[in-house]
Amino acid sequence: MNLDVNRKWTLASRPQSGPLSLDCFRFEEEALRDLKDGEFRVRTTMLSFDPTQRFWMERDTYVPKIPLGDVIRGAAVGEVVQSKNADYPVHAKVAGLFGWQSYALCNGHEPQAPYILPEGISDEAALSIFGMTGLTGYFGMLDVGKVKAGDTVLVSGASGATGSIAAQIAKIKGAKVIGIAGSDEKCHWLTEKAHLDAALNYKTQDLNAEIGTLAPKGIDVYFDNVGGNTLDCALAHLAMNARVVLCGAISTYDGTANGSIKNYLNLVLKRAIMQGFLIFDYKDQFRQAIVELAQWNLQGQLCYEVDIQQGIENAPQTLKRLFAGQNLGKQLLKV
Amino acid sequence: MNLDVNRKWTLASRPQSGPLSLDCFRFEEEALRDLKDGEFRVRTTMLSFDPTQRFWMERDTYVPKIPLGDVIRGAAVGEVVQSKNADYPVHAKVAGLFGWQSYALCNGHEPQAPYILPEGISDEAALSIFGMTGLTGYFGMLDVGKVKAGDTVLVSGASGATGSIAAQIAKIKGAKVIGIAGSDEKCHWLTEKAHLDAALNYKTQDLNAEIGTLAPKGIDVYFDNVGGNTLDCALAHLAMNARVVLCGAISTYDGTANGSIKNYLNLVLKRAIMQGFLIFDYKDQFRQAIVELAQWNLQGQLCYEVDIQQGIENAPQTLKRLFAGQNLGKQLLKV
Repeated sequence: MNLDVNRKWTLASRPQSGPLSLDCFRFEEEALRDLKDGEFRVRTTMLSFDPTQRFWMERDTYVPKIPLGDVIRGAAVGEVVQSKNADYPVHAKVAGLFGWQSYALCNGHEPQAPYILPEGISDEAALSIFGMTGLTGYFGMLDVGKVKAGDTVLVSGASGATGSIAAQIAKIKGAKVIGIAGSDEKCHWLTEKAHLDAALNYKTQDLNAEIGTLAPKGIDVYFDNVGGNTLDCALAHLAMNARVVLCGAISTYDGTANGSIKNYLNLVLKRAIMQGFLIFDYKDQFRQAIVELAQWNLQGQLCYEVDIQQGIENAPQTLKRLFAGQNLGKQLLKV
Repeated sequence: MNLDVNRKWTLASRPQSGPLSLDCFRFEEEALRDLKDGEFRVRTTMLSFDPTQRFWMERDTYVPKIPLGDVIRGAAVGEVVQSKNADYPVHAKVAGLFGWQSYALCNGHEPQAPYILPEGISDEAALSIFGMTGLTGYFGMLDVGKVKAGDTVLVSGASGATGSIAAQIAKIKGAKVIGIAGSDEKCHWLTEKAHLDAALNYKTQDLNAEIGTLAPKGIDVYFDNVGGNTLDCALAHLAMNARVVLCGAISTYDGTANGSIKNYLNLVLKRAIMQGFLIFDYKDQFRQAIVELAQWNLQGQLCYEVDIQQGIENAPQTLKRLFAGQNLGKQLLKV
């Protein structure tokens, strides 16, 4: 393995209101320094793109914001190419928050320490169905949504990396599942590949009327990835004791949409619950969840899609694809 | 006891957007008919006024709306004056949904059947601290809010019948409690009589700034009676794992305020929960709750206020007092 230079994207400026500007990102190259004791170097092979990265660039949230000038934080998989750390031997395949760079220097004491991937898991699977997005769909639907047989379930962002897993798990558990997505192609995937009961294109259909028709007795679980008007529509159609799983609100992240909701009083009238959650809280249960996800996948009950862009130089444009809804399934980039 | 005619208020028309119009109510008198087997007649002595009555007049919610021409539904206490039902003997003091009328005809099979009040409980206490509003404060703060020692708790509508009980229970449990109310007089009551740690007048103070100062580490429990901008301010100041107890949203009921909220994404970033509840779901635990409320009251840890208007002819104006925030404590009317 010839080591050369690290090619990386750093944070040049913080995002302003509106679509992400490419001016926020700076491409840099740096020489690789020698390892100290305890360190190891990972050559990244696949980068993961997630809506929450906009928060990381913008402001302190559940984690501190990325310092200006630092590499853009992001999940990735790669291979250990040099090591002075016995826990991470050379040739090990690892996943972690390696960021947008071709080589990451680690020591295993990071807040989210890299972990060695089991044999036989592809880069795509490690970052989608078995990664944070798949696990978010799993715990969000099962632990927060508490889906059960006979429920009527609505999922927004249903063809995305998290929504598609959440929706299919609801099907596996015996629910009637309606997915919302932003194109006819995505809706077709939802009913034909993911076997949902119905799919709604929020750009061309009247969500309020369609949900009323498809769920005349109301929604028992609403799994929300988008916020704003779609969330407000769902709140207007809650069943008694409904659970609203707040996973994200991508429609509001760039600050241009109004994003406000007014139907929250239905949470009182329907004795309902609206709950946010963060996947890191379930860390101790990841292994067991991955086993179950893998079983469902092998049995043909749970499929997933990936959208793989090419070349680290295209990382900023690839993140923008997410916010434009151009991806079907998990957005990735092959380094 | 001379029986004469029943004097009652019926629903003449449904409320439109804006403050309640007196045109919605019609005053009527009717002759009292003889009892059938199983029936008993209650002479009402005190009526309870609750924000939810606007919903009952307006539309189907958790209970069917009041049919046009029917008596205005409402909680009340009274005395059994005639009876052909052994479970409800003459002279028994009872509470129930007797409505805005001087005499209610009952059979004990109503969906919310009347119940006989224990000895020694005044009309005021039966309809406030030991009534639905007191119980709502009790179960909302303890079961939904899960308040615990060391929490920072924010309560809106804090001098109202429900908020004042919820806030004082949080104090009893060892929380730091901040109340929000709509006049300096109410705020004075909150700190001087109810012994809250702080009180904010939402009409004259900058809620966002004041909450930030009073709760620098965020709000662990927010008990909301008002909705709208106050709820949105509270959402902006949530602590990790916060519980938002949605009890009501009186600021939005007349449809004139915008009422929308935009800070719900904090429920995700703070792993927080926002939950509505209805007091009738706790029916089996009412007795035990009343015992505990009575103990706290006798020990001087839990006080309550009532605002008693006079004369059944003033019932509509009395309901309007609630929405104008003219009451301190529980709004009642002596028939």
